[in-house]
Amino acid sequence: MSTDHGKQFTVYCSQGPNPWKVVLILEELNLEYHINHNDTKTNAHKEPAFLALNPNGRYPALIDHSNNDFVIWESGAIILYLINKYDKEHKISFPDLESNATATQYLMFQMSGQGPYIGQLAWFSMYHPEKIPSAIKRYADESKRILSVLEDILKDRDYLVGDKVSYADLSFVAWNSLLVIFPDHFGTWKTDYPKVAEWEARLEERPSFKRTTIVREEAAKN
Amino acid sequence: MSTDHGKQFTVYCSQGPNPWKVVLILEELNLEYHINHNDTKTNAHKEPAFLALNPNGRYPALIDHSNNDFVIWESGAIILYLINKYDKEHKISFPDLESNATATQYLMFQMSGQGPYIGQLAWFSMYHPEKIPSAIKRYADESKRILSVLEDILKDRDYLVGDKVSYADLSFVAWNSLLVIFPDHFGTWKTDYPKVAEWEARLEERPSFKRTTIVREEAAKN
Repeated sequence: MSTDHGKQFTVYCSQGPNPWKVVLILEELNLEYHINHNDTKTNAHKEPAFLALNPNGRYPALIDHSNNDFVIWESGAIILYLINKYDKEHKISFPDLESNATATQYLMFQMSGQGPYIGQLAWFSMYHPEKIPSAIKRYADESKRILSVLEDILKDRDYLVGDKVSYADLSFVAWNSLLVIFPDHFGTWKTDYPKVAEWEARLEERPSFKRTTIVREEAAKN
Repeated sequence: MSTDHGKQFTVYCSQGPNPWKVVLILEELNLEYHINHNDTKTNAHKEPAFLALNPNGRYPALIDHSNNDFVIWESGAIILYLINKYDKEHKISFPDLESNATATQYLMFQMSGQGPYIGQLAWFSMYHPEKIPSAIKRYADESKRILSVLEDILKDRDYLVGDKVSYADLSFVAWNSLLVIFPDHFGTWKTDYPKVAEWEARLEERPSFKRTTIVREEAAKN
């Protein structure tokens, strides 16, 4: 695969949260990437060119041009690929198997819990063909339950694993930063879950998050 | 932590599908485990004793008594822990980083797609306080979409990664074997998705699956 951009990676993105989990990790690891941004309204993710990369038809997908154009999709799997292959100095991972297993546990909690529940709240709030208050309530409640679990875990620690930031923490930022779009349900979340709010603020202060936000906003203009 | 059972692992289980993904992997790797089975109606998963192991209050959780009673939860993370620590001969994984990254991609697809969608179908079909046909249809349709993605991936191969069974394939069995409980939506799934059905049958023929089924049925009696 030839690239004009000359960067190590191509990241296929939309404005949804999941691609920006990956970009945040690329920023943390100082890896160079090109953003291939797509408005989901164009349905480019259901076209043959993209399905050849990701048959699931969802963003993100990543190509590593320095590794024989290796293709990988699912944000959680992309994160683990980048960590296993490019975080040899354990900047945002750990030297021991057990700590990484615990970090992966939280990544799975994000992938199977936080992301899907907030995602379904968004679906029933904004896209479902009929308004179903009990479904909206279900997913708002489950999303709050996730926050309460995180609040409990963070009650006596600054980060999820060990005493430093890792890919476990960073995987939650993109979806938690989205809660603001549901003021009816999450207008007071930062006072209701103060430890989570402090943790989120600590993560959003990182240069990697600030750069990711700029890249995301720039991409949205194209 | 002292154990009376003398096995290497304790697996905290209910009759839901996720714990049996883990047991299937333990069986494949010939690891010895004790089942701590709980009827979710007892709410034992919301009691302090279990929340101390898994603050998310969901089954499964695993303790590795041979590794300082290391505790881990989230079925996908438990699977990766077992693979990374105990599948040194790559019986159901791969020697190269890229193949394992692809296997993890499918595990993430299972964790964030197949499991949650079928799970929400079960919720709206059986537990939600009101019947909402459009919500049931949404999750039946999304579950079928997952099957169609798998059908496409399996059109010219027997297993998801490489030419052998791996934890990628095995992670899908527990939820796919559940489709039978939704005859209105999945009565004809084996003819609609023949490649997936052949793959599922191939996996269900494995001694590991047969033993897991027996262990699960025995556990249900307690």
